[in-house]
Amino acid sequence: MVESSPYQHQRNIPEPALRRLPWYLAYIKLMKKQGESYVSSTQIAKKINVSPTQIAKDLSYVNISGKTRVGYEIDQLIDVLEEFLGFRFVHKAVLFGVGSLGAALLADSGLEQYGLKILAGFDIRDEIVNTKINNIPIYHTDEFIEKNQKTIKAEIGVLTVPADIAQQTADYLIEGGIRGIWNFTPFRIRVPEDIVLQNTSIYAHLAVMFNRLKQLPK
Amino acid sequence: MVESSPYQHQRNIPEPALRRLPWYLAYIKLMKKQGESYVSSTQIAKKINVSPTQIAKDLSYVNISGKTRVGYEIDQLIDVLEEFLGFRFVHKAVLFGVGSLGAALLADSGLEQYGLKILAGFDIRDEIVNTKINNIPIYHTDEFIEKNQKTIKAEIGVLTVPADIAQQTADYLIEGGIRGIWNFTPFRIRVPEDIVLQNTSIYAHLAVMFNRLKQLPK
Repeated sequence: MVESSPYQHQRNIPEPALRRLPWYLAYIKLMKKQGESYVSSTQIAKKINVSPTQIAKDLSYVNISGKTRVGYEIDQLIDVLEEFLGFRFVHKAVLFGVGSLGAALLADSGLEQYGLKILAGFDIRDEIVNTKINNIPIYHTDEFIEKNQKTIKAEIGVLTVPADIAQQTADYLIEGGIRGIWNFTPFRIRVPEDIVLQNTSIYAHLAVMFNRLKQLPK
Repeated sequence: MVESSPYQHQRNIPEPALRRLPWYLAYIKLMKKQGESYVSSTQIAKKINVSPTQIAKDLSYVNISGKTRVGYEIDQLIDVLEEFLGFRFVHKAVLFGVGSLGAALLADSGLEQYGLKILAGFDIRDEIVNTKINNIPIYHTDEFIEKNQKTIKAEIGVLTVPADIAQQTADYLIEGGIRGIWNFTPFRIRVPEDIVLQNTSIYAHLAVMFNRLKQLPK
């Protein structure tokens, strides 16, 4: 039986492997810029601090094969990785909570290069509703469900509201058809099993860095 | 022998515990807002999806003790956690690479509320050097070492340069006296042992979310 999806095999990629793929991608893009055409897992390993065996295993989840002695063809590996990681497909998103971090993310056009297209922001504050940031319109939160079902049709919700309304906002996003929540709040929201939740608590990362800095010898 | 530092004990907190503390902080701040005065680890556990035993153990690293039956005093726990996590101390930082994400982080005044004060941005592009974002001055990269040693005296460097110059920029930051690097690039930079490195690759998080979304039943 022939598989119709070329990505059938990726269903099984473990998360740690998936998280390492962008590192390889960043490094081989650098090599390409330096004029290289081929790269071996041993070369990547030297720079990335991951064993060549692990790299070869991680890359076995994507649809590419290296050649003995020369390794992977760089252009092809970049194509395959970007495709595999979803960076070349447009994922429609909305953002909730146009405060300091939310406004910053709307202004970051880098996200679109990585496949996340934020089509609208939502907030409740009069001074921000019906304005635009980086040409992205901001609407009132109350308009979300109707707008998302009729026109926006976003699948991803970026959550940058105050932590104390994170859970109720997440519930509301799901009610409006969102299937994946990118949670930037430090609040541990809960979602049903069929909803994807990605936590990116940059303030927790800050705390770890502060703590380690304190432990350095002066 | 009496310990001079009240935070002597925190040297031993494991990173997973440290990463959970901001979740507890966010939740008890919400409880405070709802008018509560005391919280037990069982109550936190119900909301956060971490066992009460784990929470009690995590909180044993910070300088607080709960009372039988009533639990922890909320105001005190907030104070102790914010202090412990370093959110109440000003950590001086500089930011390298005032592109899309870099400019967004300069504009995010939320970071300062969590103890990170970015005093200057650095870039090489004429159109941005000698401008300001959110009242933070942007200087030419070449000026960094002198400025940091004489006036800025930052300990933390936020790295938002293009991935292909991440390593050389990190080396330069360290040369200028930076002891902690917050790496937002997808590049796996390497640093000496006495330098703290915190990787926050938001694009890797995106890749994980995209991948999981693809696996959802339609």
